Amino acid sequence: MHRQLQAIIMVLSLINKSKQIMKPIHKTITLLAIAFSGLTTAYAQDSLPSWNDGPAKQAIVEFVKATTTQGSPQFVPSEERVATFDQDGTLWVEHPMYTQVMYCLEKVPTLVKAKPELANIAPFNTVLELLHGDRAAMEKLTLPDIEKVGIATMTGMPVEAFRAEAKQWLAEAKHPRWKKLYTELTYLPMQEVLKYLRANGYKTYIVTGGGQDFVRVYAEQTYGVPPEQVVGTALGTTYSYAKDGKPFLTKEPKLLLNDNDAGKPEGIHLMIGRRPHIAFGNSTGDQQMLEYTKAGDGARLSLLVLHDDAEREYAYGPAQGLPDSKVGTFTQALYDEAKKNGWIVISMKNDWKAIFTFESK
Amino acid sequence: MHRQLQAIIMVLSLINKSKQIMKPIHKTITLLAIAFSGLTTAYAQDSLPSWNDGPAKQAIVEFVKATTTQGSPQFVPSEERVATFDQDGTLWVEHPMYTQVMYCLEKVPTLVKAKPELANIAPFNTVLELLHGDRAAMEKLTLPDIEKVGIATMTGMPVEAFRAEAKQWLAEAKHPRWKKLYTELTYLPMQEVLKYLRANGYKTYIVTGGGQDFVRVYAEQTYGVPPEQVVGTALGTTYSYAKDGKPFLTKEPKLLLNDNDAGKPEGIHLMIGRRPHIAFGNSTGDQQMLEYTKAGDGARLSLLVLHDDAEREYAYGPAQGLPDSKVGTFTQALYDEAKKNGWIVISMKNDWKAIFTFESK
Repeated sequence: MHRQLQAIIMVLSLINKSKQIMKPIHKTITLLAIAFSGLTTAYAQDSLPSWNDGPAKQAIVEFVKATTTQGSPQFVPSEERVATFDQDGTLWVEHPMYTQVMYCLEKVPTLVKAKPELANIAPFNTVLELLHGDRAAMEKLTLPDIEKVGIATMTGMPVEAFRAEAKQWLAEAKHPRWKKLYTELTYLPMQEVLKYLRANGYKTYIVTGGGQDFVRVYAEQTYGVPPEQVVGTALGTTYSYAKDGKPFLTKEPKLLLNDNDAGKPEGIHLMIGRRPHIAFGNSTGDQQMLEYTKAGDGARLSLLVLHDDAEREYAYGPAQGLPDSKVGTFTQALYDEAKKNGWIVISMKNDWKAIFTFESK
Repeated sequence: MHRQLQAIIMVLSLINKSKQIMKPIHKTITLLAIAFSGLTTAYAQDSLPSWNDGPAKQAIVEFVKATTTQGSPQFVPSEERVATFDQDGTLWVEHPMYTQVMYCLEKVPTLVKAKPELANIAPFNTVLELLHGDRAAMEKLTLPDIEKVGIATMTGMPVEAFRAEAKQWLAEAKHPRWKKLYTELTYLPMQEVLKYLRANGYKTYIVTGGGQDFVRVYAEQTYGVPPEQVVGTALGTTYSYAKDGKPFLTKEPKLLLNDNDAGKPEGIHLMIGRRPHIAFGNSTGDQQMLEYTKAGDGARLSLLVLHDDAEREYAYGPAQGLPDSKVGTFTQALYDEAKKNGWIVISMKNDWKAIFTFESK
């Protein structure tokens, strides 16, 4: 801001040398500079309003101050300010089931309509039972089953067709507990962190185990994160031509990047080419990203969201004696590694005044 | 600019209601606005000074005007302004041999020093002969040979070690004809296009058949293109831990993305997730990227640099009867496709006043 004001003062000086005009202008600009610096300070104090005062909020604010204050020994040039965020369980709700898995399951009826022979074939018949209210069917579904459903519902079509289908589903599908769109179930404190980091020159990336193409459909509108800053599990595409000669890309069942565990730092190197200075996760799938972040020079901050609020959201670990969960597992070993290496564990219960974005409306 | 000025006027109004101060300020700001709009126009007229007036320059300027003028039927919102550039032969010289191949060949002596047994094994012995001045050895080297040398010199080390080695080589190695650093052999007219597009809100990406990690070493300093905007042929990495527990990534001989031909649009989808509005190439390896770009809605521009200037640079095709070349092949079929589909063919001889950036110094 100060540099901008200086530039304006310079141009004003060039355009208008008349002293009787310049004097009040200089005065006003001084007032303006004071007002702006006041606004900046007020904003900095206020940038994480839904966070309770505590070690987590303090660590984030101190990290930003240390890396963005000119002359600070830990100053980071703006082009190197990279912040990475896991999505499921870090930016939005992931229980009782990852949103993208819900998408794949709920697309099965459409799939069966197009290919009726699938209605009697596992795992598609099991999914149909589940969607008809047979909760016990959920127990029958294995991980390979879910992968099979994923491939059937997310590949074999042009990328634009998939985008349109996912967009439509996201505009209609509701979360079973809150009866709200999934994109309304983002965490307000994390939305504040995204904005706070961007306001301080950080480029915010999503680095998710979820499908890159799926998350890109809504990340810009939902988080202010553009498609090119979404790194996720990625399948290959194949380039070919329609009958009219127009080229198009088809989604293929060929895994290019499994963006979980070690795949996260590998994906960051592939897609960003810079090591993050700050990274947020919430489960064992984020461990290597947080290690990789902390292993860099200078100021680096790794943080984990702990789901310890059964009342306002969910409680699962099994870290710290919380109930075990297959979805978003946060083991005691991860907790211990975090504590040993100076990562910050964010308690949803204690650190967050509000959970969801819709609570602020 | 106008929106900024309006914001400043608003703040000024809030801070200082005194009419005798505000009047001259309003007057000055009007003058300021006129001055700024004058500056903008002057800049736009001047933004491609090393291009001769002609259809290529005109097409670029008209494309930028159509896609960035508010109210234009072809206006593109700033977040969707994506421009992609091939590198070898499009942004810098690629003859007599791709720079990265020169890197791999010239790293062989270091490799042989570490592993003396390679000195008598093909293709490393052939490369040593070549480096000792035996030009005939070049004829013996096949593409699989070059790939073998590439794997030996670019994988099996931590990504940071590779980066440091490549950086050092680029700071010392000279082009055989101009006796200049390779990074000094970028095309001035293309550097102007990069800056011109960025000044108009375009995000400029390199989409190269060259190695992503290699090009990322110098792209920011050489072209103003940051690592996260370099898409290239990419090998996988593996995450592991050093003895002290510190994690690191090792470059592996596992091809993730062959960013040539159909691999270019596939790579653009993978790494950017948006279709370019303007794309530049110079060889058959760029064909699909240019097709994919033109196949989008609204204003799209595809351009090819034709090396038809034997005197100031090189002349090769074989399009338009130019000498054939294995490096940067531009076939007559590609030329015909360009002409048929309204792509622009840039003649280095006729469209460019100057070739290299160093000529402007």
